[in-house]
Amino acid sequence: MSIKITIIGSNSAIPSTHRWTSAQFLNVGGNGVLLDCGEGTQIRLKMFGIKLNAINQIYITHLHGDHFFGLIGLISTFHLMGRNKPLTIFGPKGLKEIINFQLEASNSFLCYELNFIETNPNEPEIIFEDKDYSVTSFPLRHSVDTTGFMFKEKEKLPNVKRDFIIKHDLSVEQITEIKNGNDFIDNTGNVYKHNKITYSKLPASSYAYCTDTMYLPEIVPIIKDVDLIYHEATFLSDLQHQAIEKFHATAKEAAMIARDANAKKLIIGHFSKRYKTTDVLVAEAVEIFPNTIAAEDGMRIEN
Amino acid sequence: MSIKITIIGSNSAIPSTHRWTSAQFLNVGGNGVLLDCGEGTQIRLKMFGIKLNAINQIYITHLHGDHFFGLIGLISTFHLMGRNKPLTIFGPKGLKEIINFQLEASNSFLCYELNFIETNPNEPEIIFEDKDYSVTSFPLRHSVDTTGFMFKEKEKLPNVKRDFIIKHDLSVEQITEIKNGNDFIDNTGNVYKHNKITYSKLPASSYAYCTDTMYLPEIVPIIKDVDLIYHEATFLSDLQHQAIEKFHATAKEAAMIARDANAKKLIIGHFSKRYKTTDVLVAEAVEIFPNTIAAEDGMRIEN
Repeated sequence: MSIKITIIGSNSAIPSTHRWTSAQFLNVGGNGVLLDCGEGTQIRLKMFGIKLNAINQIYITHLHGDHFFGLIGLISTFHLMGRNKPLTIFGPKGLKEIINFQLEASNSFLCYELNFIETNPNEPEIIFEDKDYSVTSFPLRHSVDTTGFMFKEKEKLPNVKRDFIIKHDLSVEQITEIKNGNDFIDNTGNVYKHNKITYSKLPASSYAYCTDTMYLPEIVPIIKDVDLIYHEATFLSDLQHQAIEKFHATAKEAAMIARDANAKKLIIGHFSKRYKTTDVLVAEAVEIFPNTIAAEDGMRIEN
Repeated sequence: MSIKITIIGSNSAIPSTHRWTSAQFLNVGGNGVLLDCGEGTQIRLKMFGIKLNAINQIYITHLHGDHFFGLIGLISTFHLMGRNKPLTIFGPKGLKEIINFQLEASNSFLCYELNFIETNPNEPEIIFEDKDYSVTSFPLRHSVDTTGFMFKEKEKLPNVKRDFIIKHDLSVEQITEIKNGNDFIDNTGNVYKHNKITYSKLPASSYAYCTDTMYLPEIVPIIKDVDLIYHEATFLSDLQHQAIEKFHATAKEAAMIARDANAKKLIIGHFSKRYKTTDVLVAEAVEIFPNTIAAEDGMRIEN
């Protein structure tokens, strides 16, 4: 098991030609998930070889255009492609109305089921859960209601070794019993210990998506021990007054969150266009949290 | 004088990586104009080296997403860039509400003046006119209210030859009189014929933008003798039944309109994604109207 992340857009506010606005594609337990949907996301997904139809869920952090202006286009394209599976969008209050207003204005009736689930801007909440993973939304602090999202894969039961299954001609019921933690006793009374006849799949992984927000240590307990965290780092510390004024974070603050949450790795992104290179932002972060990388559009990270 | 056109997007419905949805940038008498604004237009403009701030007017043909989903992003970017000159958007009823709904939902107050002028879906109308050019909107026939736009540069007064001005030490008033068509008589009574002492600037040019529409010969008198026409050609003639059903035109029909309007040149565009090359569409059109080219994103045409 693992969470595979593709950075679709990593700029703040205004897209440039090489760095578009916020979006990420996640593969979580074989399930396609989109995080935010800046303008042109559907084009960018194609550029990076991601099939639009892989997307089953979309999570929107907040109602600033650089995080959702690509949503109406993607929804329309799904319709034009003849999508027939449902799409669920998790996002703030007001998003549903914006989308529906546009669909109605252009007389569009979608050929698939579109569901909206409103996020809670005040409290952490598990907003999705299935056998493979859970998603928790949690409040961030920005100039409008904003939530981060924490993806947690579930521990998988171990597999029974293939040659053991064949040798003992195990039934489905016997395999299930072993997977659930039992030893195996054959017809002659021999005991085979559970840990000798099974192997574990990849460990469950977790991912926290934290943008847009000012420095908010209150999120640390929620994302504690996360494997990978994406945290906005719009500014360097010398512009901290601007960061506070605009409810954004510095690279240093992103690193402090990653350190205090005991994260394994940090990706910073949502950069102000004033920075021609991300080296300076990474340099500031690694002083606090060494395992930091800068997001680049098209970058793939397996977690 | 001339109209310079840059094709920003030329696909129908769904953007591909190399052909995005409808948008064109016009330079008309030194004035920047955007025609339609499909998703990602602001990014595409940058890719093609066009400064966003050059845009003073935007003309939207109709409320299908592939013609206006990029508008809200562009409007927001103008704000983030600190635009201080007004922006006027000409488009169908409902567009203003869609934009304002989104601005209000994201608590945005623009730092510049945004004006909407509603187009008339039933009658041709001059919707803009200044000393350099006029714009006429005219009804097209599509599945929703749609208008085309005809740009007409105005004839400029001729210039008085520079060496004649110097030789006779002409005053501004004398120059103006000559420009307005009068001969010049010097102090000794010599008559200098107007056409001998002036030269004309580039001839005034005209451009008709016709998308989306089914074959509609009623537009021919409105765009008669146009220099350049862009006409949608979503399909080849073998899919004419689909063209009619979806209120689109074939390459042959686009060529018939150009021929009957006595146009000098035709650009076809808004292609269905089923065509991997535009050669077949151009081949069909040139049988009717030889001077036909296919739009490509980034193409520049001076008219």
